[in-house]
Amino acid sequence: MTTLSTVDPRTGASTPTRITATDDAGVAAITAAAAEAFADLRTRPRSWRAGLLRALADGLEADRVVLVGAAMSETGLSEARLNGELSRSAFQFRLFADAVEDGGYLEAVIDHAGDTPLGPAPDVRRMLVPMGPVAVFGASNFPFAFSVVGGDTASALAAGNPVVIKAHGSHLVTSQRSFDALERAAAAYGVPAGTLGIVYGQQAGATLVADPRIAAVGFTGSLSTGRILQGIIDERETPIPFYGELSSLNPLIVSPGAAVQRTAAIGEGLYGSVTGSAGQLCTKPGIAFVPQGAAGDALVADIVDRAESAAEQTLLNARIHGAFDEIRTRLIAEGGARSLVEPRVGAEGFSVTPAVLEIDAADVTAAVAEEAFGPLVVLIRYDGIGEVREALGAVPRSLTATIHSETGEGELRRALTEAVGELVGRIVYDGYPTGVRVSWAMNHGGPWPATNTQHTSVGVTAIRRFLRPLAWQDAPSDVLPDELRDGPVDIPRRVDGALELASR
Amino acid sequence: MTTLSTVDPRTGASTPTRITATDDAGVAAITAAAAEAFADLRTRPRSWRAGLLRALADGLEADRVVLVGAAMSETGLSEARLNGELSRSAFQFRLFADAVEDGGYLEAVIDHAGDTPLGPAPDVRRMLVPMGPVAVFGASNFPFAFSVVGGDTASALAAGNPVVIKAHGSHLVTSQRSFDALERAAAAYGVPAGTLGIVYGQQAGATLVADPRIAAVGFTGSLSTGRILQGIIDERETPIPFYGELSSLNPLIVSPGAAVQRTAAIGEGLYGSVTGSAGQLCTKPGIAFVPQGAAGDALVADIVDRAESAAEQTLLNARIHGAFDEIRTRLIAEGGARSLVEPRVGAEGFSVTPAVLEIDAADVTAAVAEEAFGPLVVLIRYDGIGEVREALGAVPRSLTATIHSETGEGELRRALTEAVGELVGRIVYDGYPTGVRVSWAMNHGGPWPATNTQHTSVGVTAIRRFLRPLAWQDAPSDVLPDELRDGPVDIPRRVDGALELASR
Repeated sequence: MTTLSTVDPRTGASTPTRITATDDAGVAAITAAAAEAFADLRTRPRSWRAGLLRALADGLEADRVVLVGAAMSETGLSEARLNGELSRSAFQFRLFADAVEDGGYLEAVIDHAGDTPLGPAPDVRRMLVPMGPVAVFGASNFPFAFSVVGGDTASALAAGNPVVIKAHGSHLVTSQRSFDALERAAAAYGVPAGTLGIVYGQQAGATLVADPRIAAVGFTGSLSTGRILQGIIDERETPIPFYGELSSLNPLIVSPGAAVQRTAAIGEGLYGSVTGSAGQLCTKPGIAFVPQGAAGDALVADIVDRAESAAEQTLLNARIHGAFDEIRTRLIAEGGARSLVEPRVGAEGFSVTPAVLEIDAADVTAAVAEEAFGPLVVLIRYDGIGEVREALGAVPRSLTATIHSETGEGELRRALTEAVGELVGRIVYDGYPTGVRVSWAMNHGGPWPATNTQHTSVGVTAIRRFLRPLAWQDAPSDVLPDELRDGPVDIPRRVDGALELASR
Repeated sequence: MTTLSTVDPRTGASTPTRITATDDAGVAAITAAAAEAFADLRTRPRSWRAGLLRALADGLEADRVVLVGAAMSETGLSEARLNGELSRSAFQFRLFADAVEDGGYLEAVIDHAGDTPLGPAPDVRRMLVPMGPVAVFGASNFPFAFSVVGGDTASALAAGNPVVIKAHGSHLVTSQRSFDALERAAAAYGVPAGTLGIVYGQQAGATLVADPRIAAVGFTGSLSTGRILQGIIDERETPIPFYGELSSLNPLIVSPGAAVQRTAAIGEGLYGSVTGSAGQLCTKPGIAFVPQGAAGDALVADIVDRAESAAEQTLLNARIHGAFDEIRTRLIAEGGARSLVEPRVGAEGFSVTPAVLEIDAADVTAAVAEEAFGPLVVLIRYDGIGEVREALGAVPRSLTATIHSETGEGELRRALTEAVGELVGRIVYDGYPTGVRVSWAMNHGGPWPATNTQHTSVGVTAIRRFLRPLAWQDAPSDVLPDELRDGPVDIPRRVDGALELASR
């Protein structure tokens, strides 16, 4: 058995763990248990599942100190950030519990039998049902919110599916301890064995995706790994949905008015958004459009000042650390960007300071629109919205776009909204795209290559990824789910074409 | 330019048409126009789009005689069936008009800014928006309802997208005339040029799917063609959703009680469902479980009688006609089925009479569970639900399953429901899966290889395939869609977690 090691990115030191890579037989045993658990889970009412999600949230918070400690050692992220992230993960489980109780996510519809313009029609009832065991891939940059205890786990469980997690190699111990916390809480709550599973090691991840018992995959990570997993799915006998959150440049546009009126505030905000969590957020604004001229110059100078005096930040792992300077060099050599601030590489571990690059909008090509994970921003100097529009054409589609503008610039704001609406999944006004709100309305997704899906991976509607519709035609009441029987129900339904709120 | 021919399946005679295969430049011009139309369509309110859909329904009905006449010549389907199908297509456009006005399909959500357990949170508003030009592939077996004027066209337009149709080679003239009817009605209504397009020829279909301006594909057809189109998509720079409705066996199960109590009625109903439209329906019950013993024997004899005295039916085209006997032979030679009724092949055209096969449940393998398009059914004789369950394991997952049972067989019915629920998208009780109701609750979809999607292609919720979520964060009111502004609205919305009905 291969014993796996964990690396402290603050020092670069590798330490063996007691965690071993899961072999093929191990993966098969875990997915078999998950399939068995699914048969049981499907019989549980929504109230039971809501209770489970709340128990998981409580279990997570009970282990906060241990979990945050492990994540600090393995990710180099700050205690404050990790504490916030753990709270967010617990909140997420509770929000999905609310959503499960609400039941709107079931999209329940009843069409009673009756005469129609096409003649007599049967009774048809539809709702969404769970799909089966879901494989969840943890992401390096969110050891809690996009990992073992993250949004994919919460939404897949909320939908009624067992979950098998592929632990991220960058935070193995955090993953194991997170899983322990979940499993302890789940066992105390009385879930069937196999409801939660975890596998370790790259090969185990590939085996998991290929496993015929797996019904869907949730993934947050690089475009290249996403493509490999999609390739494995393409070779399955039964293809399954693969939900990948893959890459994002997140253009931010500062209008001429905003550059004049809020120079320092935007400088501070943009810098904070670029460098928070060492710039390792999928919604980090990797490029920012700044107008030519004095106000834009002042904004650029503000950001440069901040970057030059910045303390070192620790990147998550050796791969990200190595890629950071590689990509930065490419953006200059091939993309034609000017380096305004050269990052300093620290003496030990995976530390860097921020990099600031600049380019004229007219010179923007795809070569300067490559995502650089880490504290790096490319400032694009533009003259007029035409240049912004044209440069955006070279930027891959993203999770978000951000527009800073002033009250008097309504026409420009509308034109920019129009221009970016096609390119992204969320438009932020006068704020920053990082710090994604976990809520009912959030959309964290976007056109390819930001994601490969028409769904969000954050917020309540993420649950739709792990559900499929099922219809019952002329069904006797005793075979129908409670939610589709006639009479008062505790969920909203569309009945004979009219939406009705919960009636009890 | 390649001039295309049309074939009358009643005679097999081929006649040249004035329709030419669309070349690559032609396809590109059509998708370019569609992309331009999309920019305009996105500015139109829902009420405008509902009006358009109703105008298309009217236009379709106005051309009824011409369209049904063309379809009779090209498909060999009966006038009654084609008239019904055209009515269904018109109904479908009107139902989507209702859905567009209702606005529930937008899934509008508003989370106001506020304090949360995670601190202050921004205002976030989300709804679904159209994706761009949709390619729609007509199916051979529904010259109206799954072709130019079919459900994919209606749902893609309803969502706000332009549509480019690939005409099915089996009904070229019907396609062209259908398109003319739509286009005339659309032009009179004032749609932007390019909203509707059509291409002809197999190569044009491939070019269309590869075209970077196409944002999604709706397809109803064979698994093999579906795989070819998916392969084209996999090679695109930007992958897009491909919604394929691909194949289905549609198992039907007759309980011991039902075989005794309703022998003749089920014989008549099942035979009608197998042979209606010459068995060329994706929901045709291709296999039926009949109990061993006297009642089952009587049911089999009833079906055999009907099939032996059947008149000839015309299949849609030479390919289906050729495959019918090929597959039937394979089901016997490789699948081990016994032939109870040998079909008679007619003297001219693509005519056949029904084929009835029989096999014991214990002998069922994947080799006897191959879809045979046309009037063919495999009767599976079983002894006990255990045999049904086991045999179902060899049957590919399907669009539907049907259960016939009696009042006293509640436990069996629940067990069968449990067994088929995992395998299909719709469960029919004491009826037949053919004759799919077009309604709000309908689900016409199922697990792979029935479809490759978690969505229906029939009924209102089919619209979700051609929409993607977009969120606005802290947006000034003037950039928000009407549906997301504060104050009374004419759509249901979820506001701060609570669902609200339309307020005006």
